[in-house]
Amino acid sequence: MPRLVIHRLPMAHPGDVSALATLIAGGTVPAASIRAVIGKTEGNGGLNDFTRGYFTQSLMQLLARETGEAAEDLAARIPCVLSGGTEGVLSPHYVVFAVEEAAGEAGLAIGTAFGPPVAPGDVGNDAQIARVADAVRAAMADAGIADASDIALVQVKSPAGGPGLLLRSVAGGAMGAALALGDVPAEEARGAALLERLDLFSPRVSASAGVEVERDEVVVLGKAPGWAPGLRMAVRAMADALDLRAVQSAFRAAGLETDPDVPEAQRPRIRAVLAKGEPDRTLRIRGQRHTMLGDTDIDAQRHLRGAVGAVIAAVAGDGRIFVSGGAAHQGPPGGGLVAVIAAEVA
Amino acid sequence: MPRLVIHRLPMAHPGDVSALATLIAGGTVPAASIRAVIGKTEGNGGLNDFTRGYFTQSLMQLLARETGEAAEDLAARIPCVLSGGTEGVLSPHYVVFAVEEAAGEAGLAIGTAFGPPVAPGDVGNDAQIARVADAVRAAMADAGIADASDIALVQVKSPAGGPGLLLRSVAGGAMGAALALGDVPAEEARGAALLERLDLFSPRVSASAGVEVERDEVVVLGKAPGWAPGLRMAVRAMADALDLRAVQSAFRAAGLETDPDVPEAQRPRIRAVLAKGEPDRTLRIRGQRHTMLGDTDIDAQRHLRGAVGAVIAAVAGDGRIFVSGGAAHQGPPGGGLVAVIAAEVA
Amino acid sequence: MPRLVIHRLPMAHPGDVSALATLIAGGTVPAASIRAVIGKTEGNGGLNDFTRGYFTQSLMQLLARETGEAAEDLAARIPCVLSGGTEGVLSPHYVVFAVEEAAGEAGLAIGTAFGPPVAPGDVGNDAQIARVADAVRAAMADAGIADASDIALVQVKSPAGGPGLLLRSVAGGAMGAALALGDVPAEEARGAALLERLDLFSPRVSASAGVEVERDEVVVLGKAPGWAPGLRMAVRAMADALDLRAVQSAFRAAGLETDPDVPEAQRPRIRAVLAKGEPDRTLRIRGQRHTMLGDTDIDAQRHLRGAVGAVIAAVAGDGRIFVSGGAAHQGPPGGGLVAVIAAEVA
Amino acid sequence: MPRLVIHRLPMAHPGDVSALATLIAGGTVPAASIRAVIGKTEGNGGLNDFTRGYFTQSLMQLLARETGEAAEDLAARIPCVLSGGTEGVLSPHYVVFAVEEAAGEAGLAIGTAFGPPVAPGDVGNDAQIARVADAVRAAMADAGIADASDIALVQVKSPAGGPGLLLRSVAGGAMGAALALGDVPAEEARGAALLERLDLFSPRVSASAGVEVERDEVVVLGKAPGWAPGLRMAVRAMADALDLRAVQSAFRAAGLETDPDVPEAQRPRIRAVLAKGEPDRTLRIRGQRHTMLGDTDIDAQRHLRGAVGAVIAAVAGDGRIFVSGGAAHQGPPGGGLVAVIAAEVA
Repeated sequence: MPRLVIHRLPMAHPGDVSALATLIAGGTVPAASIRAVIGKTEGNGGLNDFTRGYFTQSLMQLLARETGEAAEDLAARIPCVLSGGTEGVLSPHYVVFAVEEAAGEAGLAIGTAFGPPVAPGDVGNDAQIARVADAVRAAMADAGIADASDIALVQVKSPAGGPGLLLRSVAGGAMGAALALGDVPAEEARGAALLERLDLFSPRVSASAGVEVERDEVVVLGKAPGWAPGLRMAVRAMADALDLRAVQSAFRAAGLETDPDVPEAQRPRIRAVLAKGEPDRTLRIRGQRHTMLGDTDIDAQRHLRGAVGAVIAAVAGDGRIFVSGGAAHQGPPGGGLVAVIAAEVA
Repeated sequence: MPRLVIHRLPMAHPGDVSALATLIAGGTVPAASIRAVIGKTEGNGGLNDFTRGYFTQSLMQLLARETGEAAEDLAARIPCVLSGGTEGVLSPHYVVFAVEEAAGEAGLAIGTAFGPPVAPGDVGNDAQIARVADAVRAAMADAGIADASDIALVQVKSPAGGPGLLLRSVAGGAMGAALALGDVPAEEARGAALLERLDLFSPRVSASAGVEVERDEVVVLGKAPGWAPGLRMAVRAMADALDLRAVQSAFRAAGLETDPDVPEAQRPRIRAVLAKGEPDRTLRIRGQRHTMLGDTDIDAQRHLRGAVGAVIAAVAGDGRIFVSGGAAHQGPPGGGLVAVIAAEVA
Repeated sequence: MPRLVIHRLPMAHPGDVSALATLIAGGTVPAASIRAVIGKTEGNGGLNDFTRGYFTQSLMQLLARETGEAAEDLAARIPCVLSGGTEGVLSPHYVVFAVEEAAGEAGLAIGTAFGPPVAPGDVGNDAQIARVADAVRAAMADAGIADASDIALVQVKSPAGGPGLLLRSVAGGAMGAALALGDVPAEEARGAALLERLDLFSPRVSASAGVEVERDEVVVLGKAPGWAPGLRMAVRAMADALDLRAVQSAFRAAGLETDPDVPEAQRPRIRAVLAKGEPDRTLRIRGQRHTMLGDTDIDAQRHLRGAVGAVIAAVAGDGRIFVSGGAAHQGPPGGGLVAVIAAEVA
Repeated sequence: MPRLVIHRLPMAHPGDVSALATLIAGGTVPAASIRAVIGKTEGNGGLNDFTRGYFTQSLMQLLARETGEAAEDLAARIPCVLSGGTEGVLSPHYVVFAVEEAAGEAGLAIGTAFGPPVAPGDVGNDAQIARVADAVRAAMADAGIADASDIALVQVKSPAGGPGLLLRSVAGGAMGAALALGDVPAEEARGAALLERLDLFSPRVSASAGVEVERDEVVVLGKAPGWAPGLRMAVRAMADALDLRAVQSAFRAAGLETDPDVPEAQRPRIRAVLAKGEPDRTLRIRGQRHTMLGDTDIDAQRHLRGAVGAVIAAVAGDGRIFVSGGAAHQGPPGGGLVAVIAAEVA
């Protein structure tokens, strides 16, 4: 029976995959066992952030060397989801999802799927929503998860679709996954609602888009009978960027204490922390004016990640938080979500 | 008997003092009762941040109109300490310290002092340390505080002293105040120790420096028998930028609950939150690499304020946090301090 | 007969009007003779650039002190047009337009006008175009210029009109002036054409918008019989950001040599250089890709001003160039304009 | 007899080497004929600019695939010098230097050399100066250039040597090359003079340093009898960032007209334009204040490249200019150099 194993690894720079190389060389992680990689690189997280491509190229080169498969083929079957921007206390790192054989049942499962090639511009519309929903269902099948209520988190990555379409594509990917999960009803999960009906959301979906992406890519994480246990995962909606209570709640639901932060002895059990957030468009947080959206010098998403990332890192006691901006339909307006994966024992 | 009264006011932009104008016009705050102003403006907080000067000019113009005194004279007796940079969830605001007549004793007191004019370049040395220590003693006398152990916080503002000297001046101001408080022994509080002996610090001192400042300016806050009660103040050292425990402790010591944040009903009692922080020079926080000090596009102090400010704001439940970078000698290396002033009743 | 006199003055920071104070104190520029001020401050030129408001406040305070008029009244009759952003070689400065009595005729004239108060949001539409056109006609009448072909340049400043409307307001101001000049026919100068029909433009119009502006403000410069001579002014369209030939042409048309730059001996005759430019939306300049519009860390207009400003400054031999971004309808798409005012003798 | 052939190629992003791949595939540039690559990528040009590493990895992967040599071995014999930062009108591109067989003599030659491995920290001192001077002599021998007066330009790349040493390493590399060229006398080319004696410089040296570099790398370009003709190269010192006259002079010396820019018909003959510049440390250019060195939001070198690059691009009529900051000892203080390589026929 497969067991999901997660390694959270440091990088010295966006081209550094040496920590994974060491684990592969030592036999801890067979290269062929890797199913997905999610990471945070130290670029600006914007259009001209090339640290994501650099890391992906370096990763696929390593895996190609180790598996003998072509780098292109690996990239077409192993989702590699990167978010640029390690503002403030955030630390560049990547999370490797691999599987090993183990006994027991009803553990955390992973499933992945790649959709069909996407025609330029065919994002942010009904077609993308349907496409992504199909890919989520395929990934659920891959994981052996029959019931959407067992899904903890869906990570979606879609083609950016061309100039000016990036945020629409993120929204479309989120809506498609929310549809598959049943968190948004089919009659409302329409292209016309994207970026407009911010009340439609799933706090179990994290979406992104990239100019280099050619097909929708999906990773689902959730409980499945055919997987061996060992990891617990929990997700919580964040009502706003200051929602400390939700952050603590997610860690506790994953089996960790928070007093107010995770005790030092339990911190090694943290396997991954994933979050989405959004600068509040009302220009206020709990009634006070924020300045993220009017700063000509620092991009609003860089402001946001620095703030939300710090709140979560303060509870985790650790800066290795995957926090990504652009959270439309992935949590309440002005808020977002936080997901925690922890090992049951250290 | 004087009672310290504190108003925390919003600004729509760095030239907006209308909230104070309204309080003055309504009789809530007689213009003549104002003793000091501490605020956070939305500039970049660096050398080319002119929002501090703009706010000061606007404030002094208002007070000149209301009191009949010349703006220059007001600026020479009312310390106006501004920190630029409202990164992330931080909200531009200013805190007005005024006095009114009231009964009772042993309340929170304020004292201010201005040192002599400073010759260009005469900062970051033994002379500045002695000068600032004298000014702190004068401000203590002004407040009627005899025992340094009753001081909650000293705020110092010194001339920047010329190109390249800004950080030395901040350090010198901090060391001078630490000397006056007895937090650093006289034989160690020397110019040679500035920016070198980071183990020498007072977590009760917040220092800054500005190119526009001509004399050392000092505000002390602490308990004094001759002042009417009503406010409680507490300060805590922060061990690092993630020190959530210290933040909660400061709020609780000021009489507020934290569960994990200040309950909504108690938030109106918060009068001011002041903090200092510093990007860890070891390039790591709790063993994980941070990227604040190597980012060519975002200034390290902007990163820092965004992160530390968010952690504190998440506990306060409110983005109106005065958080300022450049914390050498104002808390442990890589850390800083957080101070909270709260009303005993709402 | 009035003669237009122009002084180009340095500022040490955005609150520094001491150079003008000295000229007023020395009798060179009677405070009452000042008709308009155009300047370049060292902010970021974006939404959160408060250096413009700071300078304006400082200027009006100075003039209020010198003339006895209220600062608000002065601001309502003296247009003060500031552009933030002194990227690269650009130097913060301001140009003071004043009038004195002199003999002779057919010299460079100045006229100003303020439109009616503008309702929020009433920009970027037919109404703004009509309003600005009226104001331009009023300013022409004020200058005594009957024929639009005698106009060298119209400077317009309009209310920003609310979030997201800033660029539409700039476009509307430009279109309104272009209509008054006859450079765009009335049937095409419509709200629907704004930011769409970039082929509709006047290379004799420089427009801006600001959140702090409440009424359209107009300055016209051109030749009029009722004004004494002494200054020559020329304007040229720039085809793109590299149009060195157009820059030289403008300087030569204003009576200066360019070999390739203005000879040192003639440079003191330069009174003002005003320019507009725009990052090419095709993402290419003469076939080569530029990266201004995709940079998450540096605002596109900051890139643009740094580049266009350097080209013009290299010809002028001097960094005091007023160059402003957002040039839609103020020159060819991807280009802009450059205007030079020079004294006939040093 | 070898002939130097130069191709200036576009890149769509820092991982894009497809233009070179096409030339190799078509037989125009045999992969084995490539001797050096110099390019400009669209990062921020600072410590956290990873576009240089990404491009280098992509380039060496391509050449490894084409030549069968290991990527590490290629990187150890083909200098790849990249400068990040395509501010303003600058266009990302790379210049490939290759050799082919041809007849004729006394043409432009290229020589390269790699020094020995450098111990950490062993830069910015006498040892680096000596080491780089030796490497320059080796590269001259490689090119067959006996007389230093035949050298047009030396490009040096040195290890950064650790935190805080980057600028010293650039200076040391420049001084070492200046020593080898005889442009700075041996008794003055000392570690103690680095970054201090800015009057010591060679306007024929362009130096850089990188954290990823392990050995000094040198490229020399100059006239040698054993090379076939076809290219002309010229270099000029720039007195300051506005030195338009020097820029035109360099183009003319390379055989092109400037009126004021290179005529469109001659532009295809331009093979490479290389420049160095520096924000003037006096904080003034020709007496006017600049703000590059005090901007907390935009790095000074980004300002500089945007300005100097635009002046040169305006003459070239083309944004593909390699302009790099950090010009100490590579031209007059506050200035730098510009070098042009042009084909004798299109």
